[in-house]
Amino acid sequence: MKHHCGVFGVFGHPEAVQLAYLGLYSQQHRGQESAGICSCDRGLISRYAGMGLVTEVFDAKTLERLRNPVAIGHVRYSTTGACLEVNAQPMLVNYAQGQVAVAHNGNLINAALLRDDLEQQGAIFNTTCDTEVIVHLLAKPSQLDRADHLIQVLKHLQGAYSLLFLFPGKMVAARDPYGFRPLVLGKLENGGIVVASETCALDIVDAEFWREVEPGEVVFISEQGVTSKWIAPRGSVKPAYCIFEQIYFADPSSDVFGENVHQVRAAMGARLAQEAPADVDMVTPIPNCARCAGMGFAKASQQNYGRAFTVSHYAGRSFIMPEQSMRDLAVKMKLNVIKRNVAGKRLVVVEDSVVRGTTTRGKIGALKKAGVKEIHLRLRGALSLG
Amino acid sequence: MKHHCGVFGVFGHPEAVQLAYLGLYSQQHRGQESAGICSCDRGLISRYAGMGLVTEVFDAKTLERLRNPVAIGHVRYSTTGACLEVNAQPMLVNYAQGQVAVAHNGNLINAALLRDDLEQQGAIFNTTCDTEVIVHLLAKPSQLDRADHLIQVLKHLQGAYSLLFLFPGKMVAARDPYGFRPLVLGKLENGGIVVASETCALDIVDAEFWREVEPGEVVFISEQGVTSKWIAPRGSVKPAYCIFEQIYFADPSSDVFGENVHQVRAAMGARLAQEAPADVDMVTPIPNCARCAGMGFAKASQQNYGRAFTVSHYAGRSFIMPEQSMRDLAVKMKLNVIKRNVAGKRLVVVEDSVVRGTTTRGKIGALKKAGVKEIHLRLRGALSLG
Amino acid sequence: MKHHCGVFGVFGHPEAVQLAYLGLYSQQHRGQESAGICSCDRGLISRYAGMGLVTEVFDAKTLERLRNPVAIGHVRYSTTGACLEVNAQPMLVNYAQGQVAVAHNGNLINAALLRDDLEQQGAIFNTTCDTEVIVHLLAKPSQLDRADHLIQVLKHLQGAYSLLFLFPGKMVAARDPYGFRPLVLGKLENGGIVVASETCALDIVDAEFWREVEPGEVVFISEQGVTSKWIAPRGSVKPAYCIFEQIYFADPSSDVFGENVHQVRAAMGARLAQEAPADVDMVTPIPNCARCAGMGFAKASQQNYGRAFTVSHYAGRSFIMPEQSMRDLAVKMKLNVIKRNVAGKRLVVVEDSVVRGTTTRGKIGALKKAGVKEIHLRLRGALSLG
Amino acid sequence: MKHHCGVFGVFGHPEAVQLAYLGLYSQQHRGQESAGICSCDRGLISRYAGMGLVTEVFDAKTLERLRNPVAIGHVRYSTTGACLEVNAQPMLVNYAQGQVAVAHNGNLINAALLRDDLEQQGAIFNTTCDTEVIVHLLAKPSQLDRADHLIQVLKHLQGAYSLLFLFPGKMVAARDPYGFRPLVLGKLENGGIVVASETCALDIVDAEFWREVEPGEVVFISEQGVTSKWIAPRGSVKPAYCIFEQIYFADPSSDVFGENVHQVRAAMGARLAQEAPADVDMVTPIPNCARCAGMGFAKASQQNYGRAFTVSHYAGRSFIMPEQSMRDLAVKMKLNVIKRNVAGKRLVVVEDSVVRGTTTRGKIGALKKAGVKEIHLRLRGALSLG
Repeated sequence: MKHHCGVFGVFGHPEAVQLAYLGLYSQQHRGQESAGICSCDRGLISRYAGMGLVTEVFDAKTLERLRNPVAIGHVRYSTTGACLEVNAQPMLVNYAQGQVAVAHNGNLINAALLRDDLEQQGAIFNTTCDTEVIVHLLAKPSQLDRADHLIQVLKHLQGAYSLLFLFPGKMVAARDPYGFRPLVLGKLENGGIVVASETCALDIVDAEFWREVEPGEVVFISEQGVTSKWIAPRGSVKPAYCIFEQIYFADPSSDVFGENVHQVRAAMGARLAQEAPADVDMVTPIPNCARCAGMGFAKASQQNYGRAFTVSHYAGRSFIMPEQSMRDLAVKMKLNVIKRNVAGKRLVVVEDSVVRGTTTRGKIGALKKAGVKEIHLRLRGALSLG
Repeated sequence: MKHHCGVFGVFGHPEAVQLAYLGLYSQQHRGQESAGICSCDRGLISRYAGMGLVTEVFDAKTLERLRNPVAIGHVRYSTTGACLEVNAQPMLVNYAQGQVAVAHNGNLINAALLRDDLEQQGAIFNTTCDTEVIVHLLAKPSQLDRADHLIQVLKHLQGAYSLLFLFPGKMVAARDPYGFRPLVLGKLENGGIVVASETCALDIVDAEFWREVEPGEVVFISEQGVTSKWIAPRGSVKPAYCIFEQIYFADPSSDVFGENVHQVRAAMGARLAQEAPADVDMVTPIPNCARCAGMGFAKASQQNYGRAFTVSHYAGRSFIMPEQSMRDLAVKMKLNVIKRNVAGKRLVVVEDSVVRGTTTRGKIGALKKAGVKEIHLRLRGALSLG
Repeated sequence: MKHHCGVFGVFGHPEAVQLAYLGLYSQQHRGQESAGICSCDRGLISRYAGMGLVTEVFDAKTLERLRNPVAIGHVRYSTTGACLEVNAQPMLVNYAQGQVAVAHNGNLINAALLRDDLEQQGAIFNTTCDTEVIVHLLAKPSQLDRADHLIQVLKHLQGAYSLLFLFPGKMVAARDPYGFRPLVLGKLENGGIVVASETCALDIVDAEFWREVEPGEVVFISEQGVTSKWIAPRGSVKPAYCIFEQIYFADPSSDVFGENVHQVRAAMGARLAQEAPADVDMVTPIPNCARCAGMGFAKASQQNYGRAFTVSHYAGRSFIMPEQSMRDLAVKMKLNVIKRNVAGKRLVVVEDSVVRGTTTRGKIGALKKAGVKEIHLRLRGALSLG
Repeated sequence: MKHHCGVFGVFGHPEAVQLAYLGLYSQQHRGQESAGICSCDRGLISRYAGMGLVTEVFDAKTLERLRNPVAIGHVRYSTTGACLEVNAQPMLVNYAQGQVAVAHNGNLINAALLRDDLEQQGAIFNTTCDTEVIVHLLAKPSQLDRADHLIQVLKHLQGAYSLLFLFPGKMVAARDPYGFRPLVLGKLENGGIVVASETCALDIVDAEFWREVEPGEVVFISEQGVTSKWIAPRGSVKPAYCIFEQIYFADPSSDVFGENVHQVRAAMGARLAQEAPADVDMVTPIPNCARCAGMGFAKASQQNYGRAFTVSHYAGRSFIMPEQSMRDLAVKMKLNVIKRNVAGKRLVVVEDSVVRGTTTRGKIGALKKAGVKEIHLRLRGALSLG
């Protein structure tokens, strides 16, 4: 579940890097560990990447300097094990055919195997990313033309991948045959092409949604136009979308795998109301995540939807947790109970979690302390796995 | 309207500074320009203050160092004119009786007059704050004891003030006779006393709400206990609460002037529904501010409450606005429309503003572009002034 | 000995602030704790100051913004007790006559007394600097014109002061009747007037040395020209220059109290050679401070002058001292012995210190370890106090 | 001439990383662009590197964390073309045999050729450093044992290299058969082994100079002891030391290629005195670089050695050059003339440069402006190329 990064590419806009900055920003929820953009002008690809949020990695001077017509970008999810600058994407390398940059969302199940093979043949590895395996395969000598060679390389990969490649003069978008991760195409007003993990990234740059990159499709975008090739014959594999995209990862405003995320979550709330009804004074969500489901529950059960918490907008990374034992401080620094709005009431509380964990206990405890009469906890996550 | 700072004081807790940090953090919505804490141990008051958010001004090392049993703190609202470090509060000065620190929420209407007088007598001013006038008056030679002298000083002030004074060994909370600004007292489990602008700050430190500091009351807090004196005879002046506290400034979870802020705003939404009804498919607020009123409108009109926007959690100060003319970029970097949830629908859109300004136009434009059929805009702010 | 700050003022140059930046930079050896500049354009004085070196406090954007024709600046020496931002100079305040900024090098022996008096009369103090006393005296109501009032104020001060005042439209330089601290006047090519603690600051801005501000003189500089008044009748007091200026504080390139600092120090080295001669293979200084004296010793004794140490140019504030017990690490991170140039030789080592302290021991130890045959240590500081 | 980086390695000391920090710090003059250390404990190599000075890259927390018994480090010289973080050394990669880290001082003349070959075979390159070629060769499958394989790899390299390799449990130092760049061995008191570019780095960690790594020698250092192998039969190649090490790169306190650097430079000054004598009042160097040669000139010509300039210790990277046309500001911000010590005198000025450039002109101009009667400029660099 740690592999929901975000990718974004622009081909054919004088401010491709600026658009990539916006596209990554709007997909920041998909990864906060690192951010990077590779862009290309007149045959030369340059890279700018670093640890942290998009707005922390890029400053005005850097963006100003990078006025290139083609760009691909990446935001990476924060994992505990390997939070290393060297793993920031896109990866940019030189090989016999020149430069190539790659941005990758997904994870390969045969990466370790491929890596072992490559090392036995003399390959060196700088990172712990699956992505480096793909680049090594790409760099191997081949008699095929570049496009067919790329298809052959992708056929070696097993697992989930939504990939963006940047070659001088060419951008390539590829999605594994199962379509595990989302990948969509958009069109800019000036005719430029945009590729993104989520449709919300098309919205921020005023790109019109065109279509999904289909499972198994490889889209080649260049001055000559847009053409497709297929990793597996179209329709030969039954798609296996990752359900967590709609449940957890994606922004509610995005359409993912053909459905709107908010509506999927609201429908789950409605199903919760059906499967585990409760007659109460107010249905309320744990903000922010459970809002969609909370509304779905309230509407389906024709009950009152109301507010139990306020949310702090100032909880940042630099918050210092004092040592003294404050009851549920971790909860209260983000949420505060609106006591008079809940005291004496019977509540359905909709939460996103799969299991009733420590954090949920803290929130429930805060409600009880505020004088709530009855609490019926409904876990959307539990339903989704049922 | 620029004077809604926040104050917080703790008397009698070994981690008074750490509690003040939390109390200011929870009142951060009252001021983001500067933050500061003055604390006292064994007769010596020290000051730590700076520009920015509470979490930016204080780091772990600073908090660790300041283990004092008494503290007062202040967050200051960002105004355009005088964003100067020298104006950060609390102010700490030396005078003939030793040290005194002051934190001030409000503004004096006779400050310029008093300042002129004082300058004619030879006073020098380091800041442009009203607060410095108060300190000068306090420092004047007097035959009265310190408590009575302070009452005399406060009698000279005209306008709004909720004040916290810190003398070595004594904390004093004062509220002007009209009670323009809120000021409440709370009790800690260990018997310590807390003073805050809003009740939400009591919640974060697990303090029990005790009572409001009454209009015209001056509360003296020391090892000897808590006693009160009065600026004007109790009940001699009719309170004149600042209505903007409940409408705009305070957190919805706070109780201000005896009422819960969320409920006040929801009631305003209900009144909007009554005064300007509309038969629609969905009532939706502009997040985050209009949520309370939106829910009130939906409930009062017995209509469906739903979600039209998602909110970005990553819009920080360092966001760079690319130069190219993106349509409504300033709106989209914070809000994104959930297109499929609004397309083809008739909406009541509840907004907090007083007038229909540029930002509102951007949001309405985004909804229209997403295919909303009918939009009925309801401005809560307009009602509140009506 | 902690009061050797540096001051610099410019009157009548379109880039007065930029020149002040250079003038302070060249006097950075006089104080590294804080730096600040107050400048004036069209009647309004603004202040920019902070902790650290001149190059740390001012960035290009700040300098660019401050294009004013008059400026005074200050660098402050780092003392252990009161390293507080509030003490950074120049101090800028408002009083009945408007604004005044002050930069002060020196210390007043009756400051505490004056402060007590002022506090009894109702004055408040924001800093722990002597300078604030001067400003309070200046702000007192007076029937005299501003210039005569200023003279009266200065007559109340006892001790050392070289002062720069900035009033809107007027710069004033004042030096105490004993002339403890240096203060010189220079002329810019465009006719502008410069005031500085040391002549090296005139050099960096291409100002021609004009003359010293005389002990007891107050120089008034405005569009109307340059005039002088006297605190004490000219020549009525015997000057008492602070000998440490020439021995330790000032830059060897400066002329202080009419003599060149390098030549004073070289003459002291020559006197050392006379008082405590030694027949050796090489005379060598402890860099950097004892170079002048070392050359004086070698020349006077007609012996070979040579190099025993190299100096690291990279020892900055951020150097981390590893915990393990490295022999004399503190010495070696700044100086390294040129072993082959000293092994087997008899040396005179000239050092600036007053007494043979820990640091000197480390350096001598390093020489011994390198195989020096004989070491004759000569302390210039000891001589100077003899 | 851009390849004078510095390397430092420690084997067998509990604080190897802390010693490496010191060793790199003392060799900071060999490279200021980037700094890095790879260290090894229990079979796992980790890397820490960044742009800037050693003291900027490493903070106390990082050093504290890295308590490993083996470490190699690198400082990189600032070149205009490729100031990229990715090029910071040591390089650390994974290959079939596990991890290997490399630090390289020198440049290979057949690097481009080798790189082309490797790319044709499918290799990818992340950096523009020669070093990556070496790692690729090392990673190639081989039947030889690791030591012999390494010798075979080194035989493919043409040009200058002083290399440090770190394998888990083994440190290897290698120097090309011509011995272009220096590389020395030292012994710590606890029996640990140190390798460094210059002897000054042995001094700072209290290591005893043991011997040079000989041209063509590869030294294997492990728990089993220290053994050597040879790239070319010992003595089969005539050494070709890079003369610039002694003339420019190395610290005067270091012994390089068997000679002390200060003495080499002083001897060049003496030769200048012989070849281009001048009868003057004072011989003076341009600080800091020409001090050795200046002393040599003065002593050889039996003339007075004296001081014409003071040096600013505060000229850092953040100095802002005001726009106004100050005469020779770039010179004056670093050096200031001691006017009274040079006015009216005839001077020999010893400078290190090869040709009389702009900077020299500025310094000479400053001396002329100060009233020097005669100036005889002597360029040590010119001699060295003669």
